[in-house]
Amino acid sequence: MTDRKEFRDLAPPERAREAIASLDLTPGPETVPLEDARGRVLAERVDAGVDVPGFDRASLDGYALRARDTFGADEADPARLDLVGAVHAGEEPDVTVGEGEAVEISTGAVMPPGADAMVMVERTDVEGGPASGEADEQVLVRTAVAPGDGVMLAGADVAAGERALGPGTRLTPREVGLLSALGVDEVPVRGRPRVGIVSTGDELVRPGEELRSERGQIYDVNSYAVASAVEEAGGEAVTYPHAGDERSEMERVLTTAAEECDLVLSSGSTSASAVDVIYDVIEERGELLLHGVAVKPGKPMLVGRMGESAYVGLPGYPVSALTIFRTFVAPAVRAAAGLPEPKTATVEGRMARRERYGEGRLRYMPVGLVTDGDGGTLVYPVDKGSGATTSLVEADGVVAVDPDTDYLAAGETVTVDLFSPDVRPPSLLGVGEDDPLLSRLLDDLRDPRYLSVGSRQGLRRLRDGTPDVAVTAGPVERDVEADPLGAWTREWGLVVPAGNPEGVDGVAALADRDLRLVNRTTDSGLRTSIGNAVAALADERGVDRREVVESIDGFDLTVRAVESPARKVAAGQADAGVGLRATAERLGLGFVPLGEQTVRVHGNPERSEKDGVRELAAALDGVADLTAEFPGYSSANEETR
Amino acid sequence: MTDRKEFRDLAPPERAREAIASLDLTPGPETVPLEDARGRVLAERVDAGVDVPGFDRASLDGYALRARDTFGADEADPARLDLVGAVHAGEEPDVTVGEGEAVEISTGAVMPPGADAMVMVERTDVEGGPASGEADEQVLVRTAVAPGDGVMLAGADVAAGERALGPGTRLTPREVGLLSALGVDEVPVRGRPRVGIVSTGDELVRPGEELRSERGQIYDVNSYAVASAVEEAGGEAVTYPHAGDERSEMERVLTTAAEECDLVLSSGSTSASAVDVIYDVIEERGELLLHGVAVKPGKPMLVGRMGESAYVGLPGYPVSALTIFRTFVAPAVRAAAGLPEPKTATVEGRMARRERYGEGRLRYMPVGLVTDGDGGTLVYPVDKGSGATTSLVEADGVVAVDPDTDYLAAGETVTVDLFSPDVRPPSLLGVGEDDPLLSRLLDDLRDPRYLSVGSRQGLRRLRDGTPDVAVTAGPVERDVEADPLGAWTREWGLVVPAGNPEGVDGVAALADRDLRLVNRTTDSGLRTSIGNAVAALADERGVDRREVVESIDGFDLTVRAVESPARKVAAGQADAGVGLRATAERLGLGFVPLGEQTVRVHGNPERSEKDGVRELAAALDGVADLTAEFPGYSSANEETR
Repeated sequence: MTDRKEFRDLAPPERAREAIASLDLTPGPETVPLEDARGRVLAERVDAGVDVPGFDRASLDGYALRARDTFGADEADPARLDLVGAVHAGEEPDVTVGEGEAVEISTGAVMPPGADAMVMVERTDVEGGPASGEADEQVLVRTAVAPGDGVMLAGADVAAGERALGPGTRLTPREVGLLSALGVDEVPVRGRPRVGIVSTGDELVRPGEELRSERGQIYDVNSYAVASAVEEAGGEAVTYPHAGDERSEMERVLTTAAEECDLVLSSGSTSASAVDVIYDVIEERGELLLHGVAVKPGKPMLVGRMGESAYVGLPGYPVSALTIFRTFVAPAVRAAAGLPEPKTATVEGRMARRERYGEGRLRYMPVGLVTDGDGGTLVYPVDKGSGATTSLVEADGVVAVDPDTDYLAAGETVTVDLFSPDVRPPSLLGVGEDDPLLSRLLDDLRDPRYLSVGSRQGLRRLRDGTPDVAVTAGPVERDVEADPLGAWTREWGLVVPAGNPEGVDGVAALADRDLRLVNRTTDSGLRTSIGNAVAALADERGVDRREVVESIDGFDLTVRAVESPARKVAAGQADAGVGLRATAERLGLGFVPLGEQTVRVHGNPERSEKDGVRELAAALDGVADLTAEFPGYSSANEETR
Repeated sequence: MTDRKEFRDLAPPERAREAIASLDLTPGPETVPLEDARGRVLAERVDAGVDVPGFDRASLDGYALRARDTFGADEADPARLDLVGAVHAGEEPDVTVGEGEAVEISTGAVMPPGADAMVMVERTDVEGGPASGEADEQVLVRTAVAPGDGVMLAGADVAAGERALGPGTRLTPREVGLLSALGVDEVPVRGRPRVGIVSTGDELVRPGEELRSERGQIYDVNSYAVASAVEEAGGEAVTYPHAGDERSEMERVLTTAAEECDLVLSSGSTSASAVDVIYDVIEERGELLLHGVAVKPGKPMLVGRMGESAYVGLPGYPVSALTIFRTFVAPAVRAAAGLPEPKTATVEGRMARRERYGEGRLRYMPVGLVTDGDGGTLVYPVDKGSGATTSLVEADGVVAVDPDTDYLAAGETVTVDLFSPDVRPPSLLGVGEDDPLLSRLLDDLRDPRYLSVGSRQGLRRLRDGTPDVAVTAGPVERDVEADPLGAWTREWGLVVPAGNPEGVDGVAALADRDLRLVNRTTDSGLRTSIGNAVAALADERGVDRREVVESIDGFDLTVRAVESPARKVAAGQADAGVGLRATAERLGLGFVPLGEQTVRVHGNPERSEKDGVRELAAALDGVADLTAEFPGYSSANEETR
């Protein structure tokens, strides 16, 4: 743990951008079949190799003729021409149009020799022919036409040799259409830069494989998230098996990646020693242009070269890695792929609350968005620690906070760079207790966001005015003004192993016997309820509440989510967990009922007209039906507390 | 050609939309590997199956310890703890932390039993150990820490059983990251609707195959363009071999497609009889919900069902087919794929010129965009006839023109629905003569658009104020105010077969001998120059100009683009063509020089500050270098006319 690289001289972000721009990621051109050309970028100009159309082409169904034969014709005095044949689309004409003659012709068919115009079928009548028992047919033309009428001349659309599409053109369905018309089935396109992704860290396990948590293993997030971001930016991602922190292995993987790719990104390990090893490898086997950038997150970013390949070291935490990728690396990948910068996707919004800062370097602050009652956008920081993967999906974009900013005031207008131009605020922002029925209810809403922060924290946030609704369970403080949108009750108690082998029958058993409990965090309504049960037991026994608490092994051993205590019980790590009958039955565990608590949905009074809130209110009208799916649940009854 | 379906009772566009919305295109869900999940839509809710992190995890590099051992410690009076071991990321701890002990720990490592907090390495010193020759090491902790400091508890990020992502979530790199963290490698996603595309028409040939123009064959445009648009909308396109107009073949292909797909689109043939056949097949084998919609283009649109599959018949012309697809069908495909409607991509602009209409049905008018000198957007109709495939790439979007509108006035504000949110006006809009050097010059500009409309038409449009520049060749009218941006000269004359077998030596030979000429259209500067040569010959001979013209076979046989006459010569269809030395040499043909003409780039005086115009002006500064690439070209010399 000695010789740690100190990133003392942090480069300004602009220099990092320049350093990355100075690297050459541009791959050679390639040829793709037309059906795969959409989204690609033309590598070279395409001139038309053929005339389109390739022949003088009838634009309508009707009759090909000589224009001068129709001069003076009108409704009353039609020109009368001999019908001498027919040409359909896809046929070579086998007839020539002479003076006083006409040939039936279909849209798209080749004009027969001799004809210089056509008349649409709607302005004609036919006389004679099989129907009337006569051998000869005549066409009565009830209008005069000029030479060229109804005919698209060969090459009129595109002439052979003409410039059709310029180099650098992005191919959409429309360009694919034009290329088809020219008969181009192999399209010269710019190559996609190959981007190698090397996740580092002995602790990484590929998703889908078994995780040994006791060894500190975690799933590899960056390999997939960064690969996905590379593809989104128009690159081709190549994921390498993750490298441990051991130097020779790291060197081997990085060298292979550098040989095979236009750009190598390393990322993944949160261990500083891995960064040190990479630093050394790049310095020895390549060239380090820059180490350390004055941005948060992303301080330990590296930029350099290895052989012919460019190299960028991303921070290890997924949110940081993706932010740095988006900000610094994606523009270079797009440029190498020949893709334009996406239309700036930004929104203006007001800060929902004051946010302090003042670290003296540029900060990309992840934020969530919520639409307020007037249709304005509120912006709130999402900061669960940069190691939290849930920040990935709870944020909608970032606000760049200037190094000189000490704080952003509540109500201050900020500009949010959205993660993509398609990002919109969620239809509904809910916060509070987690509950299985609520989760089910959210499934029926279009694009809701729910932050499971517990009952207390939920009410606090509702009071501060950010969310649309807060959900509480059990008895709660009453000082928040809110619209009651709906409620239901749930049976709570102690989740115990299947068959209740210890014969747990209530809180007293936990206090009196050598049993281990797993509790919920203090924000949770379940914790409040079991706290009340403990208080009742203390009253009954005439002792101090604290005394009962201390006699329960694990009362302060708290876990965060509704199923967490039950899962500890299922894993054999505890004898009882605070929880719901619904959870116990779902996990096949035993249950000792201790009571019912009401789950309430409190609406932000200023958001009652918001679409998402109305949708939720409508869904809550049908909540009685949903309670049947959850053991121990029932419709709320105001008596039930 | 009897029994043509008359679409007399055209449905209002809204009914077409409703009819398509009533069809069920929704495919079943499927499972994809995580690496292919980006862009897909979750079919069901994903709850966390594991805690993240799965263990109590060190957030920093430092020392795991018991918080109470550090109470009261500070810089001056550090707590002194015995270093009893180390835990690195990815290792199972093999040591327990007792009172007065500390364990070295890496970021991401498992907290060892006994420890309830950690201190970051920066606030510590180590004494003793191998370096000092002592066996024992001690950690001096120069700050007090509280229980839980530096530790991320198991499940603190996501707890097992928690709701992670809701159904209908679109998977971006961020959601891919969260799924990775949960170890999900197989992702349940909504299926992409399979959309079968049946192009119809005996005349269609697949791009890449040989085209027999004399038989009226054309390349199949819609199969590729519509398939590409289907994929863009989130569908899976299945292209069927094109069906001819013959009923049993059409029936067979449509039936197969209906069995294999969620939606069948027919499209391609411009022949009304094919529409009739399809109409009959759908009526007999399925159900026709609607035929004929009051929109332009797209009147002959069909909506119905065949077996389990939905069916929509698109118009045959590519521009029409794509417009109808975008407007009516793409929303249904996106809905079936679970994708949100893309953010409305519209711009406001002013009509560059008056446009008449008045057909009494809704019109989707293709338009191009150009940025004017003040940064405003000018909108001009692109109407080359709906059969023109070049309209595909010359338009940027459509303006919906109300059935009651008789005309749009010049300067009137209109709303343009862009073909995609990424569409931006071209950097430069040029119009006028086509010229090989100009085409090469455009290759160096970023996203220019050039409409090859000939010198005269180019100047006319410049006078009307729409384009940024106009390019002329040869002598031109002088009544347009313009900035001279650059010029060069090109040698023109008669392109003849290689070796000039007929010994053509000038215009006189064409007039006096039985030789066939191919000329350019009157808009072209080359046509003006040969017209002047003919006038000179007439003067010389003391005859009327008309007399000489009539003695030249093919003087009025005109083709559109700069290479077109030369290509007719190369194809053996003419003895001479008006053209350039550069073209003759490129195509390996003979050349009879008749003179030089100046190609001039005229700038719109109100656009001189526009970026694209400046770029062009800069490129024109280097035009002398480019002339070397083109035989017969030289830098402009004002003497040369």
